Amino acid sequence: MFKESREARGKARAPDGAGMNESEAFRPEARQPRGFRDRFAGEVAREREMIAALSALAERYGFAPLATPALEYADALGKFLPDEDRPNEGVFAFQDDDEAWLSLRYDHTAPLARLVAQGEAPPARPLRRYAAGPVWRNEKPGPGRFREFLQFDVDTVGSEAMAADAELIAFLAEGLEAVGVPQDGFVVNLSHRKLVAGIMDAAGIPAGEDAAIRAQRLRVLRSIDKLDRLGIEGVRLLLGPGRRDESGDVTPGAGLKDSQIASIEASLGATVAFDAGGELGRTPAGREALADLEEIRLALAALGIGAERVRVTPSVVRGIEYYTGPVFEAELTHEIRGPDGAPMRFGSVASGGRYDDLVMRFTGERVPATGASVGVSRLISALTKAGEAAGAEGPVLVLAMDRAMTADYLAMVAELRGAGIPAELYLGRAGMKAQLKYADRRGSPVAVIQGGDERAKGEVTLKDLKLGAEMARSIEDNRAWREGRPAQETAARGTLVASVRAILARQREGRAP
Amino acid sequence: MFKESREARGKARAPDGAGMNESEAFRPEARQPRGFRDRFAGEVAREREMIAALSALAERYGFAPLATPALEYADALGKFLPDEDRPNEGVFAFQDDDEAWLSLRYDHTAPLARLVAQGEAPPARPLRRYAAGPVWRNEKPGPGRFREFLQFDVDTVGSEAMAADAELIAFLAEGLEAVGVPQDGFVVNLSHRKLVAGIMDAAGIPAGEDAAIRAQRLRVLRSIDKLDRLGIEGVRLLLGPGRRDESGDVTPGAGLKDSQIASIEASLGATVAFDAGGELGRTPAGREALADLEEIRLALAALGIGAERVRVTPSVVRGIEYYTGPVFEAELTHEIRGPDGAPMRFGSVASGGRYDDLVMRFTGERVPATGASVGVSRLISALTKAGEAAGAEGPVLVLAMDRAMTADYLAMVAELRGAGIPAELYLGRAGMKAQLKYADRRGSPVAVIQGGDERAKGEVTLKDLKLGAEMARSIEDNRAWREGRPAQETAARGTLVASVRAILARQREGRAP
Repeated sequence: MFKESREARGKARAPDGAGMNESEAFRPEARQPRGFRDRFAGEVAREREMIAALSALAERYGFAPLATPALEYADALGKFLPDEDRPNEGVFAFQDDDEAWLSLRYDHTAPLARLVAQGEAPPARPLRRYAAGPVWRNEKPGPGRFREFLQFDVDTVGSEAMAADAELIAFLAEGLEAVGVPQDGFVVNLSHRKLVAGIMDAAGIPAGEDAAIRAQRLRVLRSIDKLDRLGIEGVRLLLGPGRRDESGDVTPGAGLKDSQIASIEASLGATVAFDAGGELGRTPAGREALADLEEIRLALAALGIGAERVRVTPSVVRGIEYYTGPVFEAELTHEIRGPDGAPMRFGSVASGGRYDDLVMRFTGERVPATGASVGVSRLISALTKAGEAAGAEGPVLVLAMDRAMTADYLAMVAELRGAGIPAELYLGRAGMKAQLKYADRRGSPVAVIQGGDERAKGEVTLKDLKLGAEMARSIEDNRAWREGRPAQETAARGTLVASVRAILARQREGRAP
Repeated sequence: MFKESREARGKARAPDGAGMNESEAFRPEARQPRGFRDRFAGEVAREREMIAALSALAERYGFAPLATPALEYADALGKFLPDEDRPNEGVFAFQDDDEAWLSLRYDHTAPLARLVAQGEAPPARPLRRYAAGPVWRNEKPGPGRFREFLQFDVDTVGSEAMAADAELIAFLAEGLEAVGVPQDGFVVNLSHRKLVAGIMDAAGIPAGEDAAIRAQRLRVLRSIDKLDRLGIEGVRLLLGPGRRDESGDVTPGAGLKDSQIASIEASLGATVAFDAGGELGRTPAGREALADLEEIRLALAALGIGAERVRVTPSVVRGIEYYTGPVFEAELTHEIRGPDGAPMRFGSVASGGRYDDLVMRFTGERVPATGASVGVSRLISALTKAGEAAGAEGPVLVLAMDRAMTADYLAMVAELRGAGIPAELYLGRAGMKAQLKYADRRGSPVAVIQGGDERAKGEVTLKDLKLGAEMARSIEDNRAWREGRPAQETAARGTLVASVRAILARQREGRAP
């Protein structure tokens, strides 16, 4: 398996190559693989808050945590992603040392189906679980399109009640609000796989279990799924002869007749209220779908989710193949601007659907199930305005004035920490000015200074860095600040904690409106 | 890359095989790959608590969160693990579609070095960061030995002060206490790579930059590292002719002379106090190590970490190759029993060390750094007594008595949730008895029952499931309970939330001592 590696010159070296020997002069390049990124303090804090808020909500809904590993056998995950152009259809996969194929999970749903089929899950049915964690997609990376992202999932396994689906939609609606999306800032688009099936039936596209027929219907489904991104002209090409994108790549079409394409187009264009009988109800599949959607409407009303937040949108099909019933996705309705300030299409921030046949793949036995997923990473990037920095407050900084006094400084730091005040000793080798710059970069509220003289007198100097920064901003105050140093005070060493606490309290009051 | 897959019959199917077509009768087996496991509600909750406690402590120490992706270029991670017998030396690796080799991170340290070398990190130096998340090791799985586990890391990059190392040891000590290890329940074993270098120098093992010499010293280092697991006899064999384990596998030895082995053995056996000059200080490397350890001792005392919690143990070398200075590991001192109730060796639950040359691999420029890691998964399994179940309370269960009343039930559920009370509607199809069994399995405190009659009267029946369970345990009460149903009460529908809240309050009081 590692043999090919020697051909990959200029790429990352093979892990068994002699070039990896640390004693040689080989220097790897320091960079992340394409489509992966580091996350800094503000974003990690936001992720944690978001997952905490969604977890608390999920527990109020009666979901319990249940986590699966990052790696699964490739065949257990199956191939359900729409990304046909990518190796392994969008999944990261490799062979284990016993030659079995392993894949990184591409969602939290397929591993849950494996776990349920395995009989390992808690015995109560329906099983209500939630999960948070990264998933990996081997997609073509691009601006805002990453190959690792965080998802938060809720699932109900073992219920065919439409109330279960409705509850997940309610969870998404409440969840988006819980993480800071205003109630009028999003809408849930709801559809049903059988509604799309009805649209295809009405257009005369053959149905059946034959592999070629299934493949054809899946191609039509995925063409419709692209309406949002490509517009109706793009979908027309995908349903017909095929489509060439800007880069020149050609996606083969479904080869439908013009009359069939026109029929589908008319159905997609239909404005559908929850109670619509009409055109979409003229096929058996369409009727089943509309009956299910009506049950969902009633349940949502009972759950207090108003009709203005959920609309039936027949073109929503969700590209993932395993869905069998209702499918839904939440989109933000306020304008999202990209890093360049230009408005950008953002797509859905949360989605889900029913997947009644996924456990059956393993066991042959049908286990109805439905799930929903919040795109945590996606949502954070949508909610974070360009240039918005995390203004988290840093620790109190004890300056290293004299290396021989390290133990004294560490004792101060330990006292402050013991009192619950974040604090650190400057551990670099720079002088006082650079240390104060460090404090500024860290967002430290207070600097603690003790040289030999102060130590002899049993004192410390405390610098209010917030006040200092404010004063430095105005010229007059700047002079006053330079001369009189009003932003610093002397305190007895024994009152260090109390004095720092007093400055922090003063700063908090000053910041209040 | 996927061509070999067809040979892997009987293993997990190749992800591109025709057998994956969902329309065929192929049924994958539902199981996790070896060495991977699912985690249920109790453990996930424990992970979350532990990471929250360690994060809060890290922030008090002035560390800020910084997360790196799960996948890195293989050459950026390098090969530092001791697992020479495994493919790719213990790392999960595979080729990206552009043929570059990617690896799953095996720790949080190597990716941090990449990030710093890349110049992406926040500009303040020293950089103090923490990270929590899974790491993956392609090791031979075994009982209690998994290939995916959670680690919590703290690192200080850009400081050569021994105070930085001391702080990390203090963090481990405080951190273990913060997650529930008693203060006398662990000890930190501390050593220094230069102490081991001194031991090797004293034994006359050649030193130098030549690859063969480095490899030989690394082999001796890793042999010493196994003292804990194999005992002195095992180490003697590894230092000399080699060792055959129970399974018959042979590990080649370092080929040292008997006199060299005896010299090393004597040094390892030496009881070393922090201030020991003596034998270990007779080489230049040994003297440097002892001076560093003395600085650490002083810093730890200033930080309030008593000498009884940290001891110098020359045999602690840590198998990871990138360490250059102080190394340390925390071990639990109370007896750990395995799932079979028998005492088991548990090894370290937290560890760390200085890695001054890791950033230099990329840039050629030396950036001193030190880090420590808490094995969250390991610690949870050590602290969880065999058979200890998570007694988390489940949601209030609204019984589904009449499907036509679904909307009414959902409205009750929404009201309870709105009041912050976890609640759910039973969404399966079973009868009342099975629904109560479900409530029992979920640990529900209260069942809410409303049939047609109750609805007509505007009432609900509330069943106190905790009281019911207690009464059912005693025979007399059991009869009373069956006849008089004292564990249930009738409430006006309008007072649902208040009435449920009253029962929950009563249950909490009853549980108090």
